[in-house]
Amino acid sequence: MTRKAAIIGGGVIGGGWAARFLLNGWDVAVFDPDPEARRKIEAVLDNARRALPALYDKALPAEGTLSYHDDLAAAVTGADWVQESVPERLALKHRVHGEISRAADALAVIGSSTSGFKPSELTAEGAKVIVAHPFNPVYLLPLVELVGEPTLCDRAAALLREVGMYPLTLRKEIDAHIADRLLEAVWRESLWLVKDGVATTEEIDEAIRMGFGLRWAQMGLFETYRIAGGEAGMAHFMAQFGPALDWPWSKLTDVPEFTPELVKLIAGQSDAQSGHLSIRELERLRDDNLVGMLRALRKSGSGAGGTINAHEAGLPDPAPVDLPVTVDRVIPQSWTDYNGHMNEAHYVEVSCQATDRFMEMIGADAAYVAAGGSYFTVENHVRYLAEMTAGARVKVTTQVLDGRGKKMHLFHRLLMEDGTLSATVETLLLHVDMTTRRSAPPSAQVAARLEGFAAAHAALPVPDGVGRPVGQRR
Amino acid sequence: MTRKAAIIGGGVIGGGWAARFLLNGWDVAVFDPDPEARRKIEAVLDNARRALPALYDKALPAEGTLSYHDDLAAAVTGADWVQESVPERLALKHRVHGEISRAADALAVIGSSTSGFKPSELTAEGAKVIVAHPFNPVYLLPLVELVGEPTLCDRAAALLREVGMYPLTLRKEIDAHIADRLLEAVWRESLWLVKDGVATTEEIDEAIRMGFGLRWAQMGLFETYRIAGGEAGMAHFMAQFGPALDWPWSKLTDVPEFTPELVKLIAGQSDAQSGHLSIRELERLRDDNLVGMLRALRKSGSGAGGTINAHEAGLPDPAPVDLPVTVDRVIPQSWTDYNGHMNEAHYVEVSCQATDRFMEMIGADAAYVAAGGSYFTVENHVRYLAEMTAGARVKVTTQVLDGRGKKMHLFHRLLMEDGTLSATVETLLLHVDMTTRRSAPPSAQVAARLEGFAAAHAALPVPDGVGRPVGQRR
Repeated sequence: MTRKAAIIGGGVIGGGWAARFLLNGWDVAVFDPDPEARRKIEAVLDNARRALPALYDKALPAEGTLSYHDDLAAAVTGADWVQESVPERLALKHRVHGEISRAADALAVIGSSTSGFKPSELTAEGAKVIVAHPFNPVYLLPLVELVGEPTLCDRAAALLREVGMYPLTLRKEIDAHIADRLLEAVWRESLWLVKDGVATTEEIDEAIRMGFGLRWAQMGLFETYRIAGGEAGMAHFMAQFGPALDWPWSKLTDVPEFTPELVKLIAGQSDAQSGHLSIRELERLRDDNLVGMLRALRKSGSGAGGTINAHEAGLPDPAPVDLPVTVDRVIPQSWTDYNGHMNEAHYVEVSCQATDRFMEMIGADAAYVAAGGSYFTVENHVRYLAEMTAGARVKVTTQVLDGRGKKMHLFHRLLMEDGTLSATVETLLLHVDMTTRRSAPPSAQVAARLEGFAAAHAALPVPDGVGRPVGQRR
Repeated sequence: MTRKAAIIGGGVIGGGWAARFLLNGWDVAVFDPDPEARRKIEAVLDNARRALPALYDKALPAEGTLSYHDDLAAAVTGADWVQESVPERLALKHRVHGEISRAADALAVIGSSTSGFKPSELTAEGAKVIVAHPFNPVYLLPLVELVGEPTLCDRAAALLREVGMYPLTLRKEIDAHIADRLLEAVWRESLWLVKDGVATTEEIDEAIRMGFGLRWAQMGLFETYRIAGGEAGMAHFMAQFGPALDWPWSKLTDVPEFTPELVKLIAGQSDAQSGHLSIRELERLRDDNLVGMLRALRKSGSGAGGTINAHEAGLPDPAPVDLPVTVDRVIPQSWTDYNGHMNEAHYVEVSCQATDRFMEMIGADAAYVAAGGSYFTVENHVRYLAEMTAGARVKVTTQVLDGRGKKMHLFHRLLMEDGTLSATVETLLLHVDMTTRRSAPPSAQVAARLEGFAAAHAALPVPDGVGRPVGQRR
């Protein structure tokens, strides 16, 4: 059955939650009395639709149904998850949580996006709410801090994993949870640096993103310092770095006064730094960078790359039709080039994914490769027939031309959503023994399955383009 | 003339500096009395050689000469840059800077890797030293904080840009410069969180790398918050977030006591988190992640991606021989697949880079594309002849088969360093009018240059593999 999320309070955070659920196939019901809420949520959804599917090499489930409601109870009824993202005023939150509790199913998770309040404060009037604190952009960053009653947190964590997120359940409640405490520390120190004229906002940003920011996107603080400690280990590192705690390095013992002058100074520097780009442009730049970096992290599976890999493994493989559909995916922005369409190399990347999936279907999967057998590509003939652009959904069908002996001769058709044939890839592979790295026959089981496909496809006409050299038309 | 760097004090930081200079073609002379210094520096160089060249789509200059010296003066003589990375004891630094000053050329930059001392402390005994504070791994992270006498900092900044780094010159000296102040703030807060049992070291690392760490690798603190403020801008964001400065969120007003128990707690948690990987394995995982993320950032040019793009633009294009050499580069680790060799799609990526370079050579460059003309690939025939692995250097030669009218028919040979032919790509492109996205003749100038190459190559034999369908042998 399709799951349902209720989003109470729109804006950037509420909209991000809506996008995360909707693009993972949930129905989403929004309640927000702000007349601008619909416009704001649609803007977040526009961004999310161009970014989130591009993280994966499989298509996400079909989008759920999005609805807007004037009545909180109507939005909440039947929801598996109710997420409150209203302004940070405790009395307001208490009132909204009360209304949600009266309308929600008994088993629904009620999460609050609060960064400032602890569960003991939120539940003071009896609502069974937990903290579920996400990070902007919610549709791309996996982290959600969960704080509250353990069985509720466990139920919430399971649902969050279903939509590709990384739940981090806190051992104790604490003001501002974990990440915002660290952010607050950096924020205070940065305000001092600007106020004292040591650095501008732009210089501080460069000091972060040219150095430790890159480290922290893939390992955190402690693992990075573990490396710095070298073979002597973490205790050695602490012995070196620890004494700095006593040095007068930081103004953190004090807090800068929050004057209009300070606000003006910061805002003015920020305009000088980023004012040439609109917020929308900045958001898309950020999202494109995040998608590119997250896709890079998928290679090692570190951090958020591992979260995406785990989520993708649970996504359904395309259902076979006449010819097996071996790929069903969306084209990421990072695959386009200066001609404004998908670069030629990525057509081959998609073709390679089709070959990999077909290999799985005949039993030449990761375990088979680990056991010493694989196929190596020896020749590809690619015909580029129609341009494909970022965000396009592509399916690949795979036809077996020959599957005798060591040979696997395949014909992939890259099809756009409207059925247009975008490219064909005729690919010839040879089975190899991975110990000698020379050609050798496949296992009997793989051979039989491949021959089964070859026999089933033998009656199909030879596809247009096969058996012809480059540049020769029929 | 080849530049020379003297590295005074090896270890991870000194070794990182040595690698950064050496792999950018500088001669490097090392002085370190530690008998282990040579082994430590070679270990860093091993890591650097597999990571740094993989950032670029062109080959770096040939490595300079590395030498080790028992005598500081011998190492320093004739150096353009002398980098001191000895332990953080001021008296030791004063002594070493004195020795360096007596031996160094008058125009040499003398930089100190110190994170703790200010220039006014370092220069107290008259040495003309500046702070040049790098970040580990020095061979991959571009940031260097420069602090000190402005003309010295300017000279240092120019040299650092030559080796692909990002110099950030501070407006005022301050304890711990910029980045380490921010790191120190996070470190203190993290120690509290572990000590108080709110989170383990692993949970804190996840709170960073699953969320804000990803944001900070590509935008910093202020640009990220500018986006959070939305259309209302930075002042609006501060109005929302600013009051938190008065909340009791943080223990930053106090510092945890640095007891043996705290060290044991942190070291034990770090072992549980990362103890299954050796430091060497962690370093390589980190480097592979950084290379992948940095390559992703090259797409938008944000942050360190822009620094790499700028550095690469200054690297020499391959010198033409008989056939033009259109690519000369190293294969990154991220291009390999489960078969342990370069994935088939990246052969086409290399071929595409060869085509792009050849287009530049005939005048169909970025300006030409911007003015509305380009070539689209319509067909590729790839023959995979020999496996290529991560770290391999590959050159591509390009032969013109046909250059008449709208057609550009090329034959790329991918050659390994020992001359082995790894792959051939026969590629057919058509010139297009970017406004109609239909085929159209190229400009007269581009046509003439292409025909010039075609005429020069007309006498060459037709390459093996041309004009044959997939699977057909000669």
